[in-house]
Amino acid sequence: MTEPNDRTELLNALPLRDDLRDKSPYGAPQLDVAVTLNTNENTHPVPADVQQAIVEEVSRAARGLNRYPDREFTQLRQELAQYLGHGLSAENLWAANGSNEILQQLMQAFGGPGRAVLSFVPTYSMYPILAAGTNTEFIAGQRATDFTLTPESAADQVREHRPSIVILCSPNNPTGTALDDDVVEAVYQAGEESNTIVVVDEAYAEFARNPAATALRLLPGRPRLVVTRTMSKAFALAGARIGYFAAAPEVSDAVRLVRLPYHLSAVTQATALAALRHRETLMADVEDIKMQRDRIVDELKRMGLEPAHSDSNFVFFGGDFDSGDMWRHLLERGVLIRDVGIPSHLRVTSGTEQETTAFLDAVEAFLDRKTDTEHPTETV
Amino acid sequence: MTEPNDRTELLNALPLRDDLRDKSPYGAPQLDVAVTLNTNENTHPVPADVQQAIVEEVSRAARGLNRYPDREFTQLRQELAQYLGHGLSAENLWAANGSNEILQQLMQAFGGPGRAVLSFVPTYSMYPILAAGTNTEFIAGQRATDFTLTPESAADQVREHRPSIVILCSPNNPTGTALDDDVVEAVYQAGEESNTIVVVDEAYAEFARNPAATALRLLPGRPRLVVTRTMSKAFALAGARIGYFAAAPEVSDAVRLVRLPYHLSAVTQATALAALRHRETLMADVEDIKMQRDRIVDELKRMGLEPAHSDSNFVFFGGDFDSGDMWRHLLERGVLIRDVGIPSHLRVTSGTEQETTAFLDAVEAFLDRKTDTEHPTETV
Repeated sequence: MTEPNDRTELLNALPLRDDLRDKSPYGAPQLDVAVTLNTNENTHPVPADVQQAIVEEVSRAARGLNRYPDREFTQLRQELAQYLGHGLSAENLWAANGSNEILQQLMQAFGGPGRAVLSFVPTYSMYPILAAGTNTEFIAGQRATDFTLTPESAADQVREHRPSIVILCSPNNPTGTALDDDVVEAVYQAGEESNTIVVVDEAYAEFARNPAATALRLLPGRPRLVVTRTMSKAFALAGARIGYFAAAPEVSDAVRLVRLPYHLSAVTQATALAALRHRETLMADVEDIKMQRDRIVDELKRMGLEPAHSDSNFVFFGGDFDSGDMWRHLLERGVLIRDVGIPSHLRVTSGTEQETTAFLDAVEAFLDRKTDTEHPTETV
Repeated sequence: MTEPNDRTELLNALPLRDDLRDKSPYGAPQLDVAVTLNTNENTHPVPADVQQAIVEEVSRAARGLNRYPDREFTQLRQELAQYLGHGLSAENLWAANGSNEILQQLMQAFGGPGRAVLSFVPTYSMYPILAAGTNTEFIAGQRATDFTLTPESAADQVREHRPSIVILCSPNNPTGTALDDDVVEAVYQAGEESNTIVVVDEAYAEFARNPAATALRLLPGRPRLVVTRTMSKAFALAGARIGYFAAAPEVSDAVRLVRLPYHLSAVTQATALAALRHRETLMADVEDIKMQRDRIVDELKRMGLEPAHSDSNFVFFGGDFDSGDMWRHLLERGVLIRDVGIPSHLRVTSGTEQETTAFLDAVEAFLDRKTDTEHPTETV
């Protein structure tokens, strides 16, 4: 068996696209650790009755698996619209295999060679990779040093770069805080002259302190606005790969020109429908996760660290520590969190009560050890 | 509700990529007809015991659906390699949501702006669409007037165009006949100077009159050769969307740079594994389909039509008839087949014995009617 490292030369002998050479595949480590809080998964398993409902719906779908699935997944679009409310109907909805595929389809339709997508870093690290995969230039827009983004700054950068697409991640990953409406409105208005598509990536919307504050409210009269969502987080379905968007119907028409026919399998459609119909059970876990999230923020503050406000199922925190040191210390204690490459900052997923306790204990132990090391005379 | 046709103007107001303007989405009509033989589906439902196995495997996967799936789908790659044989192992295998996504990933890695993909028309109509979606130029290579392709002609066209990718569809869709090894070998050799990736699309391989004659045999020593397969046809899983390829391990490394992380859901992996483990049951239906396919060829010949040799689960046939006329006549009798846009030719999927009878009866009735119309005096 050839090891991946031996294969670089063989890979380079293939006619790989030049801009892909010497790149590494995207991917957080999939390590076997007791407490896995590094990829913002919902750490609550799908409740047993929802699992049962999924299995029953898949069982129904299995009878017709020899046939291609409904290419327009009409039932799913109807029920997604019902779930979102805000006067949306099936024709406003579109779904794909994860919000990554949603964003890829939008970039295929509205981006591509000679066009650019603008987002404000630090933000979801897949955006530049999706841009590269669709030959779209990625422009790394700027935030303030505290990672916030004002309407004025965002609008100025849109007017300066005139991108085909802007992606606003709200709540933002990795920082966790939701954007105010006025940022979205300012960006949309600033993009009028350049006819810019404005995507608000609301993957974590259900965890917001104020879930009513969604960009869905801004859709009427804004045909260039697209709000993307996922079932990976609040619906605890990361393994099922279901993302979707709400927008004017003509945005779906555009995506239909680049989507792979039958891209959403009958099994995926069945899984999504079953989970949607059991959302009350799933949303109870969301409340629990929000409680633990707030507990993380409070406790980290108590320890003298600086957690950001969080509207998501994770907490981004800074402080007087070395990211690599703390990350390794936690891993040694069986707690895997995420080093997002920002000095003196780390990101942790809000898990169950038990997982949260394991994380907080490990951080406290790290800070105590650190104090010991820094002031050795005091501890002798 | 806005009707699609009213939306063209709205769509055109969006910043759609210029080369997508005025295009139509790909898609065969999904009509509600008694006998549906237009998309080369396996018309035999998944047998009950295989359905049961799929449901059980999905039930196991449902317990962990809150977590992202195995990004490397290692178990599935191992079992796909086992199924294919030819000394292949997991590192030679890659899978995606249908062979359309497989081809899209290959074009993203090896095609793109300034590069071209060559295929020999008439062939699978998705190739140019996938090329457009990845900004790869599509070159329509030529076949002889009887739709055959000689090694010399194929190699000459590769040397002339020097494409980054050649796709050889074998058995070819819509014509149904498999290519001989010497065509694949000649194309591979002709592509040496241009470092061309040679993809042999074997979506229908299991239906070949000689299934041992697969391009998998040619893989050793050919790092630019990729053989793609699907579980949509022989495995009766069109609804589950599972395609895969076998190639040198570094081809997967290339695709890892453009694939969406976690593109293959845990539910899809579970479905594929269950079906693979029950392949004996599924392959019994394949034998039945081949028998009906040969029956179609024989009967159409008897009726004076000209069916092509078929190594697939469909038959392409020509004759002295108007394609549109026959297609409509069959639809009126509840039999939906495919008009692939080639004058005086149609394509029909080989279904169950009953479906095949319905098709043959409808063709015979059409030919009788046609004779009546052409020679009205004789019938008075």
